[in-house]
Amino acid sequence: MDPREPATTNLLLKAFELPEFEAFDSEPGSDAVPRAAPGLLPLSVQSVDMCLQTNKTNHYTSAYKIQNLVIRRGQEFIMKVTFSRPLTQTDDFQVEFMIGSKPVTSDNTMVVATFDSRRRGPWSGRVVEARGQVLTLGITPTANAIVGKYSTWVAIVMANGKQRTKRDAVTDLYLLFNAWAKDDAVFYPNEAGRREYVLNDHGIIYQGSIETADSVTERSWDYGQFERGVLDACIYILDVSKMPIADRSDIIKVVRKGSAMINVQDDNGVLVGNWSDNYSMGTPPTSWTGSVSILLQYASSGVPVCYAQCWVFAGVFNTFLRCLGIPARVITNFISAHDNNGNLTTNLIFNSDGSLDTDDTKDSIWNFHCWNEAYMVRADLPPDLGGWQVVDATPQENSDGYFRCGPASVVAIKEGLLCHPFDLNFVFSEVNSVVVSSTKDRYGTLTTFKVDKEYVGKALYTKAINSTAFEDITITYKYPEGSVEDSLAMARAQEYSSQCSLPKLPKAWLFVKMSAAQVKLGQDVNLVVVFTNQSDVTQTVRANLTGSVTYYTGVRARDPFKNLVFSVTVGAQQEQSKTLNITAQEYLANRGSLVSLSFVVSGHSGEQSVSATQVVTLQTPELTVTVSGTPRVQQQMFVSVSFTNPFSFTLQDVIVCMEGSGLISPKQHSYSTIAPWAKITWKESCIPQVTGLRHITASLDCSDLRGVTSTLCT
Amino acid sequence: MDPREPATTNLLLKAFELPEFEAFDSEPGSDAVPRAAPGLLPLSVQSVDMCLQTNKTNHYTSAYKIQNLVIRRGQEFIMKVTFSRPLTQTDDFQVEFMIGSKPVTSDNTMVVATFDSRRRGPWSGRVVEARGQVLTLGITPTANAIVGKYSTWVAIVMANGKQRTKRDAVTDLYLLFNAWAKDDAVFYPNEAGRREYVLNDHGIIYQGSIETADSVTERSWDYGQFERGVLDACIYILDVSKMPIADRSDIIKVVRKGSAMINVQDDNGVLVGNWSDNYSMGTPPTSWTGSVSILLQYASSGVPVCYAQCWVFAGVFNTFLRCLGIPARVITNFISAHDNNGNLTTNLIFNSDGSLDTDDTKDSIWNFHCWNEAYMVRADLPPDLGGWQVVDATPQENSDGYFRCGPASVVAIKEGLLCHPFDLNFVFSEVNSVVVSSTKDRYGTLTTFKVDKEYVGKALYTKAINSTAFEDITITYKYPEGSVEDSLAMARAQEYSSQCSLPKLPKAWLFVKMSAAQVKLGQDVNLVVVFTNQSDVTQTVRANLTGSVTYYTGVRARDPFKNLVFSVTVGAQQEQSKTLNITAQEYLANRGSLVSLSFVVSGHSGEQSVSATQVVTLQTPELTVTVSGTPRVQQQMFVSVSFTNPFSFTLQDVIVCMEGSGLISPKQHSYSTIAPWAKITWKESCIPQVTGLRHITASLDCSDLRGVTSTLCT
Repeated sequence: MDPREPATTNLLLKAFELPEFEAFDSEPGSDAVPRAAPGLLPLSVQSVDMCLQTNKTNHYTSAYKIQNLVIRRGQEFIMKVTFSRPLTQTDDFQVEFMIGSKPVTSDNTMVVATFDSRRRGPWSGRVVEARGQVLTLGITPTANAIVGKYSTWVAIVMANGKQRTKRDAVTDLYLLFNAWAKDDAVFYPNEAGRREYVLNDHGIIYQGSIETADSVTERSWDYGQFERGVLDACIYILDVSKMPIADRSDIIKVVRKGSAMINVQDDNGVLVGNWSDNYSMGTPPTSWTGSVSILLQYASSGVPVCYAQCWVFAGVFNTFLRCLGIPARVITNFISAHDNNGNLTTNLIFNSDGSLDTDDTKDSIWNFHCWNEAYMVRADLPPDLGGWQVVDATPQENSDGYFRCGPASVVAIKEGLLCHPFDLNFVFSEVNSVVVSSTKDRYGTLTTFKVDKEYVGKALYTKAINSTAFEDITITYKYPEGSVEDSLAMARAQEYSSQCSLPKLPKAWLFVKMSAAQVKLGQDVNLVVVFTNQSDVTQTVRANLTGSVTYYTGVRARDPFKNLVFSVTVGAQQEQSKTLNITAQEYLANRGSLVSLSFVVSGHSGEQSVSATQVVTLQTPELTVTVSGTPRVQQQMFVSVSFTNPFSFTLQDVIVCMEGSGLISPKQHSYSTIAPWAKITWKESCIPQVTGLRHITASLDCSDLRGVTSTLCT
Repeated sequence: MDPREPATTNLLLKAFELPEFEAFDSEPGSDAVPRAAPGLLPLSVQSVDMCLQTNKTNHYTSAYKIQNLVIRRGQEFIMKVTFSRPLTQTDDFQVEFMIGSKPVTSDNTMVVATFDSRRRGPWSGRVVEARGQVLTLGITPTANAIVGKYSTWVAIVMANGKQRTKRDAVTDLYLLFNAWAKDDAVFYPNEAGRREYVLNDHGIIYQGSIETADSVTERSWDYGQFERGVLDACIYILDVSKMPIADRSDIIKVVRKGSAMINVQDDNGVLVGNWSDNYSMGTPPTSWTGSVSILLQYASSGVPVCYAQCWVFAGVFNTFLRCLGIPARVITNFISAHDNNGNLTTNLIFNSDGSLDTDDTKDSIWNFHCWNEAYMVRADLPPDLGGWQVVDATPQENSDGYFRCGPASVVAIKEGLLCHPFDLNFVFSEVNSVVVSSTKDRYGTLTTFKVDKEYVGKALYTKAINSTAFEDITITYKYPEGSVEDSLAMARAQEYSSQCSLPKLPKAWLFVKMSAAQVKLGQDVNLVVVFTNQSDVTQTVRANLTGSVTYYTGVRARDPFKNLVFSVTVGAQQEQSKTLNITAQEYLANRGSLVSLSFVVSGHSGEQSVSATQVVTLQTPELTVTVSGTPRVQQQMFVSVSFTNPFSFTLQDVIVCMEGSGLISPKQHSYSTIAPWAKITWKESCIPQVTGLRHITASLDCSDLRGVTSTLCT
């Protein structure tokens, strides 16, 4: 077959122009009979009103800052058509909606609504009210209609052909997924959830570490899905992806394509990932406070935006999903494994001196990783695997050839049902991977000394509905460790993966633990290492401590800043502790976006090796956001951001940003230097556009201090 | 994480050079103790013999025309190492195998075999025999080892480091999948099957049409998987695809990647598809007789080869699979549907004049379509879905973003279990699609007039084991039409797809049938059309006959050569037949690769529409292949190909090809003209290289006559 190019461009509706008069083919043997009764004036359309106010309220789309009608599928909307005269029994008309450059009936890129006697659909129509020459029409797009921007045409049907209205951009409409419609694949069953997961344009993303108390941090994120230009940007993304218009009715294909397009890999997508700590050619991932400026920059330039790490990918993807009407949320997985070969284990390989073998260790573990969940029916899978689905736009691992991930059913992950699409193996590993630590000997062969089944996937958090608190959703991903259900799910998962049997370990008699308190950036760290000897003889443990700077994602710098060899003698059936002091000077030599320090202690005595890790989160200095007075719509007010440099060194090339959807557009201010202990204050005026609770998010970023953010709720 | 580029190049082993001496890191606290007893000469390796003769026989790889050792994984092979002196108890050595540019232990791109006391693997080793300074070693690669080309190194382990042999290309070895090894994912359970599906380098591909008796045609195909350069070409294809070396142990990933790479789409793959009937810029798909010249041309130039249609994609893919050791066969599906939107129905949309609406009809039906099956365990799926898997390299539809298809479990297709990867929906439709015929009225709305559940997937054929007959394998894909199991499978399939309920039709009283005898190319066609009127009044049927030229794949030319309007009057409860004559002159105006004529008759009387289709296969003239004398190894013989032009017109720019693996390399001869009724004879000498049954395949091709082939078995 001659492969026909499917239509893949939605935004350029102009590319398709219908003839105003379309003659019918003469049917063989049938004479042309005029439909209008003799004596009547010919019927024509004088005006079309899309009833924006009424429809937007009924469809929960008032917040979209857009001139055109925005509605949700599977739900009636109205339009008023003024004809040249009142209609008679013999008059006939229909309303046509077209999307993409090659609209045809068979794939629903051209859909017709008919009324009363000639009801054929596929979009059902009814005359709600007829007042003289003005008809109010009710039209219900099917609940599986294509999502995107349509042009609208009223056609008067005559004996010899159809007379269409002229193309009028004012009557173009945007059709979205509908979490309120029972027949839509994205139907979400309660109103509080729909308001949070579809309509909330602000959120909180959890970060940091869960290893020590209070080390989970919050990052405020401005999703801004209703801001001017954002909906067009989301459709533009699908156009760039060359996704056929006809596929855009399918929630599974849309979210999968979205997860591929939010990262630049393969397809010239939205965001360029950068975990190098050198962000000089773009914006540091830590300095973004929301999605709007990223999406607008991408849509206006067509050029991928620099730079992102996981929470930026997840934040922008969340905007994309909510903007198109899909219930979505950002999830943080603490202690997230990245299993390179899909065998459900994470292999850490150590050299004989106790240091990590960075060439041979392909798998890795991040302090935290962010992804998205989207809510949908999974008609392609057995029943009960619908609901929340993991989708992940961070380019970690390619899925079947592309950097994309999901949709992966959360229920299937919990049950270990990894035999279904998409990417269940990979996501299952992120939350359940078994960590296998091995030493590589001089011959290049490996000896396993530790198998840890509980380390990975410590907890999963997301922002709670209608609250600024977090919700712990770990139980939706995994049964409690040690439960019968957990064993069953793990067994099922292993059946569907390439995991080999885990190595058996010789009985251990040497153990090590390490602990440390959380400290402020700039303070010394005290590590306490405790060795326990359960053998019946005194042991001399030769130990090695490595300290590395850890960036936001839990990625360690290649070169450790500390490497200490020491030895400890432990009596039979005794334990022995040792306190190791790491000064601020030692780790501050590695300034930058460091947010935590990662320590690995390893030791061996005779045949036995042990190791332990400890992450120390560094609390960043505070940024203060204040507003003057009570915000009132259309009244000027002021927002102030202030900061004091707590360090003994000068901060250079400091960028401060603020934004707040509905209140203040994204703004940025630069300081070439902030001296030691100096305070800066930046004040901006703004005029609130909408009522209700609003958020202002500020961030401060420079090469020596990353990821300082603060949010004020006003 | 800093995304690390995985190694993706196998063939350029030179890119990786190991140090000849690799010093050990000194372990803290351990003194260097020399291993060799004092007084002995230092140990070194004098020579390494890969024992080609013995290993190739045991591993069924003698047929590979290659200097190096070719073996199959999961099975022991031997090598002889000659040391500088007999070994003592204190001597230690190991054999190392490396693949790709970054060999590391953790992903098995570097594997070690150890012997006797220090047995660690992963490849197990044993000393088979020790005679003085010569050791015969037995080494068993794991049954899940990476497939490809390895370098071999013998390393003598000393106290302070390892002394390796020099890099020697003579000791490089090729490791393949192993259908003989029980633990290999491609294990095939009987010897006759393994000899056919892995070792047979020649096959038959079925084509044509199954609508009239004897219209199935055979095409001989020279797979040539053992020919010089073919194995390297197959590895080259994986290198071009940038498939990570570490993934090449995984049968699922290898066949999926293969299905993407055999076509040019997305990834600069092997073959360019062309269904246009204009092949002036390359070789017509009909003139290929085997895979060897295609693969060698691709590997030597790096440029995709022009042109292919489905049987060429399937033939070359079959070579790729068998060459790598994977049991594989070519399947022909007669009446193959191409469902564009995955709803398990094929929609044919007709205009009101009875002609097919080519703009609105996106789905299509091919007379036949060829794909491959590969045999494997599906560890990623529930039990019982292993065995034969559909893989298809013809770029019909993109699968999850790429033009590729499969592996799709044949059992899952039969059972309607479409909820598993990969592409089950698409393949299920090819054999089970419901054909829905609709008329499009003047308003653009559709009325269905026919729903046919039995038309598609009439039969599936493949070459039988150890025979030149076909095997009908329809029962492996579908339960008998109308059986309870069939209804259950269809219901299950619909549950996992987007199929809407099929339209209900009004009770029919008008029917039409059409029939015709098969004819020789150049003869007139007589069509018999019978209308049946089951109503109680006489009906006048307004009818329309369209005749189109059909190319090899069942694709019709856009413009019909015949368009006839006629009417038939049928009495109440009567039938009325009409014979329509189509002269050879009418269809010969459309010469080229036409192999059949496709007729659609449609008619309507009152509210009722009917239609029927009929394919008339055109028998092509004969090509004769003969040999002189009985073939003997290393004795010259002659092959003759002769042909007589049966037409009243001159054939121009005629290309005749012949090839026969083991007997004669691919050869081509051109004739600028062959006059009407003229006979040509082409004789070539050759020297048989191997004993046993051999095939010679010849083809003749020119713009007016495509796809004339003949095979001689000698």
